[in-house]
Amino acid sequence: MVKEKLINKKEAILRIDPNTLDTLLHPTLDKKVEKKIIAKGLPASPGAASGKVVFTAEEAERLKSVMQNTILVRVETSPEDIHGMHAAKGILTARGGMTSHAAVVARGMGRPCVSGSAEIIIDYSNKEFKAGNITVKEGDTITIDGGSGEIILGTVATVQPKISGYFSTIMNWSNEFKKLKIRTNAETKKDSRVAREFGAEGIGLCRTEHMFFDQERILYVREMILSKTKEDRNRALVKLLPHQKNDFKEIFKVMYGFPVTIRLLDPPLHEFLPKTQKEIDEVATFLKINSKEVKDRTDELHEQNPMLGHRGCRLGISFPEIYEMQCEAIFEALVECKKEKIKSVTAEIMIPLVSTDIELKILRNLVNKIADKIQKKYQTKIDYMVGTMIELPRAALQAKEISKYANFFSFGTNDLTQTTFGISRDDSGKFLNDYINNKIFQIDPFVSLDQSGVGELIQIASSRGRQANKKLKLGICGEHGGDPRSIDFCSKLGLDYVSCSPFRVPVARLSAAQAELKSKIKIP
Amino acid sequence: MVKEKLINKKEAILRIDPNTLDTLLHPTLDKKVEKKIIAKGLPASPGAASGKVVFTAEEAERLKSVMQNTILVRVETSPEDIHGMHAAKGILTARGGMTSHAAVVARGMGRPCVSGSAEIIIDYSNKEFKAGNITVKEGDTITIDGGSGEIILGTVATVQPKISGYFSTIMNWSNEFKKLKIRTNAETKKDSRVAREFGAEGIGLCRTEHMFFDQERILYVREMILSKTKEDRNRALVKLLPHQKNDFKEIFKVMYGFPVTIRLLDPPLHEFLPKTQKEIDEVATFLKINSKEVKDRTDELHEQNPMLGHRGCRLGISFPEIYEMQCEAIFEALVECKKEKIKSVTAEIMIPLVSTDIELKILRNLVNKIADKIQKKYQTKIDYMVGTMIELPRAALQAKEISKYANFFSFGTNDLTQTTFGISRDDSGKFLNDYINNKIFQIDPFVSLDQSGVGELIQIASSRGRQANKKLKLGICGEHGGDPRSIDFCSKLGLDYVSCSPFRVPVARLSAAQAELKSKIKIP
Repeated sequence: MVKEKLINKKEAILRIDPNTLDTLLHPTLDKKVEKKIIAKGLPASPGAASGKVVFTAEEAERLKSVMQNTILVRVETSPEDIHGMHAAKGILTARGGMTSHAAVVARGMGRPCVSGSAEIIIDYSNKEFKAGNITVKEGDTITIDGGSGEIILGTVATVQPKISGYFSTIMNWSNEFKKLKIRTNAETKKDSRVAREFGAEGIGLCRTEHMFFDQERILYVREMILSKTKEDRNRALVKLLPHQKNDFKEIFKVMYGFPVTIRLLDPPLHEFLPKTQKEIDEVATFLKINSKEVKDRTDELHEQNPMLGHRGCRLGISFPEIYEMQCEAIFEALVECKKEKIKSVTAEIMIPLVSTDIELKILRNLVNKIADKIQKKYQTKIDYMVGTMIELPRAALQAKEISKYANFFSFGTNDLTQTTFGISRDDSGKFLNDYINNKIFQIDPFVSLDQSGVGELIQIASSRGRQANKKLKLGICGEHGGDPRSIDFCSKLGLDYVSCSPFRVPVARLSAAQAELKSKIKIP
Repeated sequence: MVKEKLINKKEAILRIDPNTLDTLLHPTLDKKVEKKIIAKGLPASPGAASGKVVFTAEEAERLKSVMQNTILVRVETSPEDIHGMHAAKGILTARGGMTSHAAVVARGMGRPCVSGSAEIIIDYSNKEFKAGNITVKEGDTITIDGGSGEIILGTVATVQPKISGYFSTIMNWSNEFKKLKIRTNAETKKDSRVAREFGAEGIGLCRTEHMFFDQERILYVREMILSKTKEDRNRALVKLLPHQKNDFKEIFKVMYGFPVTIRLLDPPLHEFLPKTQKEIDEVATFLKINSKEVKDRTDELHEQNPMLGHRGCRLGISFPEIYEMQCEAIFEALVECKKEKIKSVTAEIMIPLVSTDIELKILRNLVNKIADKIQKKYQTKIDYMVGTMIELPRAALQAKEISKYANFFSFGTNDLTQTTFGISRDDSGKFLNDYINNKIFQIDPFVSLDQSGVGELIQIASSRGRQANKKLKLGICGEHGGDPRSIDFCSKLGLDYVSCSPFRVPVARLSAAQAELKSKIKIP
């Protein structure tokens, strides 16, 4: 239509629903490969995915923690399954249409989903489902194609999408108009590459703890956590250092020329603790202590409300050696990239869960100390910044004081939503439906930003922060970074960037362009 | 000195440290009774208390839940023990001076404490302590006298303090100057009476869930929680109604002429769930279902972060019949008191954990509906108000909208501190010492109100709320209501009242008078 001069570029940009881009962005099945279709359902969220069948969100999470791909199979999903939907590669339901919970949430997450497949009969207690005369057990591998609704036995090779034709035209036009930078949330070489291909202009959130779940490393991590003395902890950290350094190096190589925001260790330590007896025994053998000791220490570290517990920068204050190791890994990786003549990235080191300026002051000093050490060691200059996540109401209110020690703020809107509402995302499933039905929530605040409450805190933090520190860079890195309505809000507020998952980058680019264009429409 | 005209009344009021009043306010040992002193320690926090010896905070809490008095015995205490110190009647430590953690915290709480008794040797693993040649086992009863430092075997009768002489002079003068009303947090006839004797002008927080732990009722409560249908739930609620009604009636009789703020059910349901196998079996027998079913339902109700879970008004939205029963009990109690010609109280019905105006709108309608029903039934008018706790950052920010449906706001500063900082009080022990040592916190924000963060939210809520609703009554009901610095802050903000535990009422009266006097001191 633009070519035919029926509408102009701006009108074209404004006419497209950003969420529909999703269909063009996901891996599809390789057409050259033969496949055994066992059933069909509704093509509820585009993309193809293969993985082991699991019947509970918990099992999907457990297998994710050991780096295994899963397909979550449920009669239908509810908000309680969300963490499992995040963890799984794809979702398959026996009931529910194109607007069922599974379908809506999967599309929002960019997860392939086949919904309402009446051809499958799920038997939770025997952990299996039947499709005609075929029985699929938990742990068997299947493939789902969210574009066609096909359910296929075994793994089918997939083809990665390529940006081309109209799609890339729209993307290029988006870049002409948008002001917001679009970054991505990524911890692996692979995700970083996908995001860059989709036009990401850097990484907005690299969650270092996600690098710790690898089979090879988890034992060192557990050794670190169970340490009772600084000496023991350092022994474990020394073993982790080369792994972390390589992780960063790989990401830096893909993201050359762009900024990369790295969040230092954030989650409660006990997430990394051994849970099953088998894991406990394994750690005991590795550490040459007895299982009871491991169990006792694990119990000791248990928390009532881990979301509000010993996590984030509180770990950095209690165990500075952990953050020191992480900074050393980051800076060593930067130096090695420089030696290999790779176009440099700016490392933006992010301190999580700050609620006072003093926490940031102390940890900024720690980062600077390590940077000085490495700069001296290699006689070179390192390009880095120190900033913080604003994810607690108090941090938003104290933005003026905190910004004195920050080069950037990144709004962690997931946690900020949890604390502002006093609602744990993991537990909200028990009452979220009642809240939607009673019209208390128009939309799940973890899906689209609550502009009047959480939004006011972001607005307060932005204006107080920038008033005290003119050069302060502002961005958001929660799941909201990929939601068009939330992006519009961030654009209006004058943030510098949003960060979202790799497959949401094009959605975010278009949304950012729309936000900018809409802001200029004059109401007569 | 005032009598001798050396100073005037105002100077006298300003010269007294409110915290020292505590020494005059606690039960003392009956001097006529013989006692067997087995050891001595430091008189760290005044008052005498008897109870069963326990060695862990958990055990103190468990016994409290079955209405048993305990003395918590520890080598020394740490912030992790706070919940146990709240639960116990008294605290005894083997190590630590007058400014040790146990001593400072116990004085703040108004709990008797004997600290640093080098004469006792604690053996945690055998659950006993030795004092000379006497061995005291877990479960044995001892008495401690925090005024003298004596540790006594068995129960010794105590004498309740009486306000008289200089003490009551100072209290009367305080009343002349103070503007803030002083209320109390109480759920029993006994606590209400003590508070009234100390000068409390009403109840600021009556936690209805505290009435549910009684041995007789817990089974009905468990029946209610485990119900899968509304019908089953109603059957259990009908049994609870007369108990709740009587609780309220007893309190109203003591508090005649004053307002009584009643908070509808607040805590996560699973706090009431059976935990041990014995409890599970007991419930199963009572409900005539099998133990596995009880266990499964219990597991189903488990939450990751109960503090941010299905609690407060979220329960009222999901299960309106629970709040309906509670309102019925309150209004029936009011009507019966009226019939018995007892000077009326104003029932202030408080909806907890609100984060949006719509929650309050829905639940206000529910309260009004029940009030109408009872008023019609007895052809009488009931004196009541509906208000809400402001204990979530979002509620503070949305005060303008929420105040449209509220006659009063009560700041729940415990929870507001938890969500504003993102710190669970129960879990803060793991890092609080690191935070104090690093001067990140000057003082534990759960002990004295964080004026710059939490305080700003209170200030925002107060001004927005009063702007939209001129008649809005404002008070605070967290533990901070008994802390002099926090009271000074509330006074400056122009709140109407503070509410604190019964034994802190005199401290609060004096603090409120000082706050008023200080505000008028002209700085030349």
